[in-house]
Amino acid sequence: MSADAREFELIRQLFVRQIAARSDVVLGIGDDAAITRVPPDHELLTATDSLVAGTHFLDEDDPASVGHRCLAINLSDLAAMGATPLWASLAIHMPEADEDWLKTFADGFFSLADRFGVQLIGGDTVRGPLALTVTVQGIVPTGQAVRRAGASAGDLLYLTGYPGSAAFGRLHQDSELASCFFFPEPRLSIGQELRGLASAMIDISDGVDSDLGHLLHASQVGATLDIEDLPVIHAAHAKLGGESVSELVLFGGEDYELCFSVPPAREPGLIQRAESWTVPLTRLGVINDMPALQWRKGGKIFSVPDKTFEHFSDS
Amino acid sequence: MSADAREFELIRQLFVRQIAARSDVVLGIGDDAAITRVPPDHELLTATDSLVAGTHFLDEDDPASVGHRCLAINLSDLAAMGATPLWASLAIHMPEADEDWLKTFADGFFSLADRFGVQLIGGDTVRGPLALTVTVQGIVPTGQAVRRAGASAGDLLYLTGYPGSAAFGRLHQDSELASCFFFPEPRLSIGQELRGLASAMIDISDGVDSDLGHLLHASQVGATLDIEDLPVIHAAHAKLGGESVSELVLFGGEDYELCFSVPPAREPGLIQRAESWTVPLTRLGVINDMPALQWRKGGKIFSVPDKTFEHFSDS
Repeated sequence: MSADAREFELIRQLFVRQIAARSDVVLGIGDDAAITRVPPDHELLTATDSLVAGTHFLDEDDPASVGHRCLAINLSDLAAMGATPLWASLAIHMPEADEDWLKTFADGFFSLADRFGVQLIGGDTVRGPLALTVTVQGIVPTGQAVRRAGASAGDLLYLTGYPGSAAFGRLHQDSELASCFFFPEPRLSIGQELRGLASAMIDISDGVDSDLGHLLHASQVGATLDIEDLPVIHAAHAKLGGESVSELVLFGGEDYELCFSVPPAREPGLIQRAESWTVPLTRLGVINDMPALQWRKGGKIFSVPDKTFEHFSDS
Repeated sequence: MSADAREFELIRQLFVRQIAARSDVVLGIGDDAAITRVPPDHELLTATDSLVAGTHFLDEDDPASVGHRCLAINLSDLAAMGATPLWASLAIHMPEADEDWLKTFADGFFSLADRFGVQLIGGDTVRGPLALTVTVQGIVPTGQAVRRAGASAGDLLYLTGYPGSAAFGRLHQDSELASCFFFPEPRLSIGQELRGLASAMIDISDGVDSDLGHLLHASQVGATLDIEDLPVIHAAHAKLGGESVSELVLFGGEDYELCFSVPPAREPGLIQRAESWTVPLTRLGVINDMPALQWRKGGKIFSVPDKTFEHFSDS
């Protein structure tokens, strides 16, 4: 084994330590491939997302946050399908084996993984500019995954939590809201509870406007919504005022809340379910047959073709 | 959509174009996660490998080669388990969307994927230093995956093809052997035929010494093998002489041939199977109870604790 190989072997050792051992993992880390079992009457879900230093996080960010986030953003994709996560694979690109950084990174990664019973089953560790790629696999009962397509005119649009908090926390160094950016919580149990209730769902990684737009586009429907109906982040409102806060909600990313549609007949069931949630739920409005997402403010209607708030500021 | 988002949307469009549409893919690219079906009585296999510019390939390398290799090295991992590949996910990190590079890269990727019926089901495209991470998923009938562990004393060691060819082709710019480096062939059908025959198997990505060492270590056995029994790359032998060629075979990587053990009773079955293979098969020797891999040359025995040939040169 070369010095280089030995150095990277050290990294591998850090990641074989997970205590959680799922019974559906026949063979985990250490062979050419992992072997797992998908239960009968279930479909397999797979999502892949990368975090790159300089693009998605800063070199000086807490490595525990990077470890948490690279898994959380993938778990959020499974949450948005109503899936139960099972396994993860992790590719680490590092300029050199920085053991202190890696230990803290692994703490962040495994702390989240263990909380949701997700087992690390493989990956790769190679020399290169710092970047992390995670692939997660999960399951849903056959036919029950909630897709982006599926919303119909008349369905009601709902949103969990306070999107914009992550962007506000990071930009304005608000210690409480910064944790929304550095340690986002994937809404897995809510996503699972929405199977059979939601007609379409997406997670909010790029801001409400962009991601809700994707849901409506995939479903070939539209919506005209009131800016005033967006959930208000009180700390941000106090500091920035209403207009800038709406901007954060619509265009601030990295929150990983869920946005979904519900047919009116199922709304009572949703309300009942949501009573036990610790995360607030906001009704945004009703889906229509228009081919676009429009925002209403002070009686006027604005389209938002780009990720900029100029259209609002001009008014 | 911002200019940045638009640029990367272009990339995504290049990768939605695959014609191959597997019936076990319920939902492919375009939602938060892909939905697939694993057939009953099969186990799922998952492997992840990265290629980073400057570490595993050069910026000036043919992008078709990079596209081929990032998938091939993963398919080779499935081959080494005896698996049938089904699906792939691809994370692309790029400093900027270079459409020409990406088109040729996609050609290389899909040319290999289509040949083995592998469908791209998802991934991520983000800004960052050039790197590719692929996760492949495949299946084997339950319990039939061939692992690294499983070889016993008395089993016979076999090797496909001519490891060292890729290193020779790349280092000495031999146009014929360079294709072994730039377009390695994953030994998928051979791997699948070895289910029920091989007691243990690994693919040769880092050289015969290192990877065979992993197989023996996982199986808790050893072997004492003759350098002279290694397959001879004739073009390399003519140019470099015997000693340097042995060095290439033992320590040259990136060939992705298969190395496996077979119980003596199954050897006739192996010989019969291999008659239809276009890839040569070499018998390296017999597994013993020693805890190490040793090489014999001219009646002397050498251990190779490091990836250097000093031990041989000193003799």
